[in-house]
Amino acid sequence: MTAETSHGSRHRVRCTSTRLSDGRELLYFDDTEPYVSGSAVRELHDVRDLGEAETAGECRYDPLTGDWVTIAAHRMGRTFRPPADECPLCPTGRGTVPSEVPADDYDVVVFENRFPSFSERQPDGTAAGLVDDDPLWPRRPAVGRCEVVCFTSHHEGRFADLTPSRARTVIDVWAERTSALSRLPGVEQVFVFENRGREIGVTLGHPHGQIYAYPFVTPRTEWLLQLATDHRERTGGSLLRDVLDAERRAGTRVVVEGEHWTAFVPAAARWPVEVHLAPHRDVPDLPALTDPERDELALVYLDLMARLDRVYRTDTGPVRLPYIAAWHQAPVRAGRDLGRLHLQVTSVLRAPGKLKYLAGSESAMGAFINDTTPERIADLLRSAAPDPRGRVAG
Amino acid sequence: MTAETSHGSRHRVRCTSTRLSDGRELLYFDDTEPYVSGSAVRELHDVRDLGEAETAGECRYDPLTGDWVTIAAHRMGRTFRPPADECPLCPTGRGTVPSEVPADDYDVVVFENRFPSFSERQPDGTAAGLVDDDPLWPRRPAVGRCEVVCFTSHHEGRFADLTPSRARTVIDVWAERTSALSRLPGVEQVFVFENRGREIGVTLGHPHGQIYAYPFVTPRTEWLLQLATDHRERTGGSLLRDVLDAERRAGTRVVVEGEHWTAFVPAAARWPVEVHLAPHRDVPDLPALTDPERDELALVYLDLMARLDRVYRTDTGPVRLPYIAAWHQAPVRAGRDLGRLHLQVTSVLRAPGKLKYLAGSESAMGAFINDTTPERIADLLRSAAPDPRGRVAG
Repeated sequence: MTAETSHGSRHRVRCTSTRLSDGRELLYFDDTEPYVSGSAVRELHDVRDLGEAETAGECRYDPLTGDWVTIAAHRMGRTFRPPADECPLCPTGRGTVPSEVPADDYDVVVFENRFPSFSERQPDGTAAGLVDDDPLWPRRPAVGRCEVVCFTSHHEGRFADLTPSRARTVIDVWAERTSALSRLPGVEQVFVFENRGREIGVTLGHPHGQIYAYPFVTPRTEWLLQLATDHRERTGGSLLRDVLDAERRAGTRVVVEGEHWTAFVPAAARWPVEVHLAPHRDVPDLPALTDPERDELALVYLDLMARLDRVYRTDTGPVRLPYIAAWHQAPVRAGRDLGRLHLQVTSVLRAPGKLKYLAGSESAMGAFINDTTPERIADLLRSAAPDPRGRVAG
Repeated sequence: MTAETSHGSRHRVRCTSTRLSDGRELLYFDDTEPYVSGSAVRELHDVRDLGEAETAGECRYDPLTGDWVTIAAHRMGRTFRPPADECPLCPTGRGTVPSEVPADDYDVVVFENRFPSFSERQPDGTAAGLVDDDPLWPRRPAVGRCEVVCFTSHHEGRFADLTPSRARTVIDVWAERTSALSRLPGVEQVFVFENRGREIGVTLGHPHGQIYAYPFVTPRTEWLLQLATDHRERTGGSLLRDVLDAERRAGTRVVVEGEHWTAFVPAAARWPVEVHLAPHRDVPDLPALTDPERDELALVYLDLMARLDRVYRTDTGPVRLPYIAAWHQAPVRAGRDLGRLHLQVTSVLRAPGKLKYLAGSESAMGAFINDTTPERIADLLRSAAPDPRGRVAG
């Protein structure tokens, strides 16, 4: 299946869909002619004998927190730091063993995770029920989907090294996948994110992100929507919009301000490095962004990613920051009016070689201690501008 | 100041209070005559020139989560993995430099943390206010107290190596400090915990725990009390008691069952190793425990700690498990009837050398994925009995 999508007059992305040998879906997104991947060049098939993907999992309700905890025991055996020439995210044509991507090259590629926490494929007969027949502990199948998004075929790259045009393709892919996964039966929220760095357990160095389609509204979002509802009842306002307006008004923690986007360190930042990025217009999710908003996002996002790698420096040069870049989107059905789109980037690195750990206070009690101030984080990020004149989008 | 406390006819603990050179309080708890520490042997003074302790900090309200985040910028320079002969928790008489404990030896000692997240000593004029004068962001001084509890003067030991009598002393100390800190102005919750292992960022190898006295009810407890209130309205029951009863009834995840205590893996465990320990009687906190309950707790706790170090094994022997042991106590004022005492022990180790990291799903969305099942964790802990006959307390 091949389809072309176009946003505005400038940016065209061709999508080609195929299947891996264990039945998982793989989607090539090509943005530059002649197209390098998929059927337009030569068709490659996944020749690996993977057997059937293990995807059975369940969610259990934790009555002490109100959260759904996902039990995905099949993930215990997942790939752990393979050598570079066996990278499963490089094109098969480039490594020594067949990878997850049966192509000679690609622009951006998306495929279902081989070790998914959530999957459409659940064993027959698994349905909602109770753990030990006790009403305290509802359980349900871990229905949903987990996808991997490879930002580039270049193993050694970073998101920050992408061209603005390729970054724009990734944004379109995030938006397209959010739309597609939102339509899957049982999916309640779509989460687009990038984990980067061994320090946070990333086992594959190849630049990639992930997308989780959850069968529930995540705990953080559930709670945020509750607080936003309280805020609207109390003040009549939208909590996330009011926070953005207040940060722009105060200005003390603003890092980048464009025509459509503002990046700021939140007033109560809890991580050694934390920055939020929000659109100026009220939108619930990535698919709702207009072309001009996406164009500027590509530039602002690249700017922000480049700053992250200039926050710390050692004798041998700048330190590649481990980070989690998390897109908070409104759930598929609930809270569309209050769940305003925003990106939250956090890092555990508090100094070169020194990590912030979640110990007793944070992990057990949820009480975060930050060893720096949000204003100092903003200073660090402002002085880490990739362009010395501080120019960004717009 | 010296005072003797006695619980029941058997266990007597003498408390001696002194001050370190920067004004911090230090308390010796001796349980064995002739007493080894404090004035009964010979008085040692802290000869170090520490200057004044840096203790200023503030809590900021995060409107997106409803949590108070503590900003403790002075903690950035705290002690990081000193060599063993400069251990600040060993008795001064045993190392090459004066330590935090100006004594030749001690049984159990408690002192105020030199780099506290919360302190009674806040600069004059710091009061509640607003960040950037915006009502979205209330701020307040980080009033409270952080204490260190050294379980033993032996640098290489573990809690599991304590005698039952010394473990009982530690329990009495936890209870006594909970009572004392609960009486401090502005303190709303007291949290007794032990972080162990470099894997979770512990910078001092000497066996020790900590106590945090918070100026707010912690996020986890706040939320638990809300859920417990909902549960009582819906069922008339006590949530934490009903969970304990259900776990004992199901039995599938029970690890140790005594006369007064039961340890179980919760039905929705979110960590690779997680075990809870709860008293059979409804008590809000450690000070409320009776002598028989404390006696059995000493044995059950030692049993549990010994099991943790037998969960994993490599060619070179059993693996010392990194863990967080967290005592959930009812807040000082709120929720005394629903905030039932329980211990939660969690570990990030999912296999020897492999850690569970909090990446995007857990860290940004609060949605935990567990790569094992709670029932398998219970099997591991049951088969890790320190006594092959499986005997414990009572």
